[in-house]
Amino acid sequence: MQKTATIDEAWGRKYPEQVVLAITKNAKGRVNLMAIGWVCVVSDEPPMFLIGIDDHAYTLELIRQNKEFVIAYPSSAMAKETLYVGTTHGHHEDKGAKSGLKFVPAQKVSVPLLTDAVANFECRLVTEYRPGNCPLIVSEIIASHVNNDDSAKRLVNLGKGYQLEGLRVSN
Amino acid sequence: MQKTATIDEAWGRKYPEQVVLAITKNAKGRVNLMAIGWVCVVSDEPPMFLIGIDDHAYTLELIRQNKEFVIAYPSSAMAKETLYVGTTHGHHEDKGAKSGLKFVPAQKVSVPLLTDAVANFECRLVTEYRPGNCPLIVSEIIASHVNNDDSAKRLVNLGKGYQLEGLRVSN
Repeated sequence: MQKTATIDEAWGRKYPEQVVLAITKNAKGRVNLMAIGWVCVVSDEPPMFLIGIDDHAYTLELIRQNKEFVIAYPSSAMAKETLYVGTTHGHHEDKGAKSGLKFVPAQKVSVPLLTDAVANFECRLVTEYRPGNCPLIVSEIIASHVNNDDSAKRLVNLGKGYQLEGLRVSN
Repeated sequence: MQKTATIDEAWGRKYPEQVVLAITKNAKGRVNLMAIGWVCVVSDEPPMFLIGIDDHAYTLELIRQNKEFVIAYPSSAMAKETLYVGTTHGHHEDKGAKSGLKFVPAQKVSVPLLTDAVANFECRLVTEYRPGNCPLIVSEIIASHVNNDDSAKRLVNLGKGYQLEGLRVSN
């Protein structure tokens, strides 16, 4: 049976929630990352992602400037790094370097791929919406990549406050 | 290391993917359901969901007509029913009755809640986008409900072709 609940209580039942990393680069070539849970495929022809990014995030500023970025699925081995980039601000901190994560050049965008990610998607900004209190970035995926190791588990958020774990799933 | 992949191959690594049920009602009072994987929270004040619904879905027609619907998180006990409503069409089939699922009246909308769901969200249509090949329905959540049994597991899709299972997660 159902009982009326606050939205926080009801959304507390939403887990497991997917988490992605948005990778950007600033004018000086510094790589920045952010962990994002509000993410959705919104078209398959052409392939598109929608992500919700907080107004004050450096990632949002860089996406608006450069019009291109990378979305990566972090692996279960990246819980610590994902927590770090998800809970610090990029304006004054070199999150790419400090995270210890490794990067390789992308194929079509100037922003690098995450070497050990489960998958990487090269994205180009298409449009931006704002139906409520959060900017929504819609991008077209112009190239995609997967880890050579197809047993790599995707990292997911298992509960409020970044309960990050890897879940093995089949394809 | 990364290797270039088709978008299908790269999206093949996206699981576990969340699944929700969109509940609607037609002019004759018939309850209709659809399983949806393209879903995302897009605002928290006010609370809003975005869902992607195929152009030909009866659900889309009913949401445009009535401007209100319910989004439910199915429980792990509903894999069979979710598969059924996710793979049949509602134009000519009474999916609400044939699914065997139970419903209770909602608080603010004319569409019922799913009695044994993990959570239910009463939604009112706000706007519609179409950045690619899929209509995106944005709704405000005007009431929310949770299952009295807080140990109920949310159903998720573990792989291509509806590999539906329940995963126990903490809040």
